[in-house]
Amino acid sequence: MKDLKDYVITIPDFPEKGIMFRDVTGILKDPDGLHAYIDAMTKALEGVDFDVILGPESRGFIFGMPVAYNLHKAFIPVRKPGKLPRETVSKEYSLEYGSSTLEIHKEDLLPGSKVVIIDDLIATAGTAKAIASMVEEMGASVEKMIFAIELAGLNGRELLKDYQVESIVSYEGK
Amino acid sequence: MKDLKDYVITIPDFPEKGIMFRDVTGILKDPDGLHAYIDAMTKALEGVDFDVILGPESRGFIFGMPVAYNLHKAFIPVRKPGKLPRETVSKEYSLEYGSSTLEIHKEDLLPGSKVVIIDDLIATAGTAKAIASMVEEMGASVEKMIFAIELAGLNGRELLKDYQVESIVSYEGK
Repeated sequence: MKDLKDYVITIPDFPEKGIMFRDVTGILKDPDGLHAYIDAMTKALEGVDFDVILGPESRGFIFGMPVAYNLHKAFIPVRKPGKLPRETVSKEYSLEYGSSTLEIHKEDLLPGSKVVIIDDLIATAGTAKAIASMVEEMGASVEKMIFAIELAGLNGRELLKDYQVESIVSYEGK
Repeated sequence: MKDLKDYVITIPDFPEKGIMFRDVTGILKDPDGLHAYIDAMTKALEGVDFDVILGPESRGFIFGMPVAYNLHKAFIPVRKPGKLPRETVSKEYSLEYGSSTLEIHKEDLLPGSKVVIIDDLIATAGTAKAIASMVEEMGASVEKMIFAIELAGLNGRELLKDYQVESIVSYEGK
């Protein structure tokens, strides 16, 4: 039986020298890998009381939707500006170089909602932190965050220390 | 019980006057809607012999992944240029104004693979047709295409007449 990490394809020196890129599409191209990760994420939500999964564009859609289906929860996509047709709430946040903005449909996330955030990767955790802030500003709460892959060397957990965070596999480096 | 169409939110005159925009996020924000569409897509593949689901960025990820999970198949994301880290095959295709390019990882789709294409919407069907051509040029075959919503007035089925096409709900207009 394969180890969960065996499904991740590591590409050295991409997109630049010294970076070990962890490619989640290796998980998806093997039905057993796809099943194992979605099952592990589903299991990570046992006993968690929540209503809705938020997944950021676009790899958060990949992992968030099957888990929402499994647990009969709603799914709200978190998108880049201009993609959502109804009234949105926006959140700007800083990146290493410059900034980025996320949006969700305003009327879809009700005050008091209990949210789980799912994404493919936790690196510096800037995106997850921005989503959590947006959720809280809308009067909802973040019950848990789940990531397929964690790059532990980037200390994303420090930024997310106020939240319950779980990753399916974790790498020491960056 | 709600009709499947009741979950689709229609936004008149978006993005321009005269267009009735069909917003699939209305399906996702209701757990019953999400389940009903994924179950209908899963059922649409009963008796279809296939290995892998291809879903285009990014709403094809939303519908394709849970169906791949349900049926224990692989999922290969079809992405815009520059998003995939390994060697890709590209396909350029024409849009109403200008052109667009799609990519998949070359080594992930093996010759002889039996493919199902899943996306949120069939409109003019240019994207689905381009993916099908790419699949065939790689020596694989398209067994079926499934869409959540069909805009029948745009005649996408005519362009896809060589394929088995199924949509979960269909609107007469554009």
